[in-house]
Amino acid sequence: MTKDEFIDFIHRLQDEICDALEKQDGLARFREDRWVRDGGGGGKTRVIADGNVFEKGGVNTSVVHGVLPELIRDRFGVDQGYFLAAGLSLVIHPKSPLVPTVHANYRYFELYDREGGEVKDRWFGGGADLTPYYLVESDAKLFHQVHKAACDGVHPELYKEFKPACDAYFHNSHRGESRGIGGIFYDYLRPDKAHVHSSIPILSDLQLFDLARRCGSAFIEGYIPIVEKSKSLEFTEAQRYWQEIRRGRYVEFNLIHDRGTLFGLKTDGRVESILMSLPPRVRWDYDFQVHPGSPEAALLDVLRKPKSWV
Amino acid sequence: MTKDEFIDFIHRLQDEICDALEKQDGLARFREDRWVRDGGGGGKTRVIADGNVFEKGGVNTSVVHGVLPELIRDRFGVDQGYFLAAGLSLVIHPKSPLVPTVHANYRYFELYDREGGEVKDRWFGGGADLTPYYLVESDAKLFHQVHKAACDGVHPELYKEFKPACDAYFHNSHRGESRGIGGIFYDYLRPDKAHVHSSIPILSDLQLFDLARRCGSAFIEGYIPIVEKSKSLEFTEAQRYWQEIRRGRYVEFNLIHDRGTLFGLKTDGRVESILMSLPPRVRWDYDFQVHPGSPEAALLDVLRKPKSWV
Repeated sequence: MTKDEFIDFIHRLQDEICDALEKQDGLARFREDRWVRDGGGGGKTRVIADGNVFEKGGVNTSVVHGVLPELIRDRFGVDQGYFLAAGLSLVIHPKSPLVPTVHANYRYFELYDREGGEVKDRWFGGGADLTPYYLVESDAKLFHQVHKAACDGVHPELYKEFKPACDAYFHNSHRGESRGIGGIFYDYLRPDKAHVHSSIPILSDLQLFDLARRCGSAFIEGYIPIVEKSKSLEFTEAQRYWQEIRRGRYVEFNLIHDRGTLFGLKTDGRVESILMSLPPRVRWDYDFQVHPGSPEAALLDVLRKPKSWV
Repeated sequence: MTKDEFIDFIHRLQDEICDALEKQDGLARFREDRWVRDGGGGGKTRVIADGNVFEKGGVNTSVVHGVLPELIRDRFGVDQGYFLAAGLSLVIHPKSPLVPTVHANYRYFELYDREGGEVKDRWFGGGADLTPYYLVESDAKLFHQVHKAACDGVHPELYKEFKPACDAYFHNSHRGESRGIGGIFYDYLRPDKAHVHSSIPILSDLQLFDLARRCGSAFIEGYIPIVEKSKSLEFTEAQRYWQEIRRGRYVEFNLIHDRGTLFGLKTDGRVESILMSLPPRVRWDYDFQVHPGSPEAALLDVLRKPKSWV
């Protein structure tokens, strides 16, 4: 697989996902901002706002390259280097508290000793996770099943590694809660190399590319049907209030814990493209409490103790 | 000065400030939550909400002690130790976008080699800063003048150190903006010791205690008159919208950059007391822009290039 194939893939996926979401919304259209990075490369930020269904969302691609930022040099213990990073990242915040928020990201990284030099290292990362405000078990099962099938199509051992990795990553440790009901997460998967921290099987670059493509399609298969069936349900002001409280937890995760967000902000990434992930309207009450036995409490139970959905 | 004197001071100041704020509000009262820390000590969190004037605010004290958390051990390069930390911390978010948000914090720290051991080191920290949504120059001047006078009462060289320190600390580096129009900030001031990073004069413990007391009183003198004169002004929905956008920047600072918040969350501090600083209702729009020449743009100018107010 060449980097150009991955770049084509994320651009096609961006188009497909934006089309599918616009069709669900029926009103709002994505607006595209193309931007250029000072150090090399750029991106296409596509944002939707104030729709029938989607209050705010972004489906962004970026292909950036240049001298390796200090933060990455430190992490990999190299003195110098050149990199290329290509990725698609999306976050969708629906208006209705009965429609879950969703996030997905597929990315590919190449490391060179110098500009135009040979590839010294390369890896893939990705994942998708669902953040409902009210737990609908069939939705959680669908989202996980579709992503499990995508992983299984590449190797039967992947989902059982990526599911707990997702629970571990999207975790608000300061509250002892997961951000949502999870999905899949993988990072730093190098073609033909064993992964350091787990029993993830060795995969070729074609398999890792296939994984990103299958999971990318799974996003549409796993999320659009949930939107379709829940978007017209009536909701109350109290449910909306709860959604805004929970969106606060989403902000907390993204700004305190998310490595991707913090890395982007610390390496002079495009702030508006990075922070498009933040929800449109958010609420923080002091010591907000749910009623025992309520649907809100049922969600918290699952966030405090992630369960198996397939 | 003994630790008990500092502890008395913060509790008296908490009462005075809560009284003054309740009088301004005229409707809402502070609700007190007393909490106990697992490792030793506890606090009194006092929160006000949904008032005539104040939408959300907290005036908290805590006196905690125990085995030195790993994070502090690492910072000071010690293998073990015992600590006591006493402080008052407040954040007030008014309902009206024409009334500024304010923050203040006064704290004292003692370090021992073991529980009940001799004091090995001790220091003071503190400060106050104002975050208006619309710039009123006379308010900025009053707030700075009152705090300058408090500092000058201890030593004429202090304000000129603490003012730029405040601008440097409360800075959203990812946006190139200050959080607000500043005030004063000082940290790690050890009695009778030279400060490492600046030309701050050597002060005795009595002078440092005096500084905290004078600045604590300055808070009331510097903020209450601003509330008094602005709380009844009519505001528009568009001004409220701008306030909610700016509150998003406040959240970004507190969750991404504020050492105190991150330290509290990483050392298992009481989450609800720490995050009471977050505004009640917040908004993030993609790529929000102000109109050139507008009052909103005038605020941004000052946030991007801090100026002298006295």
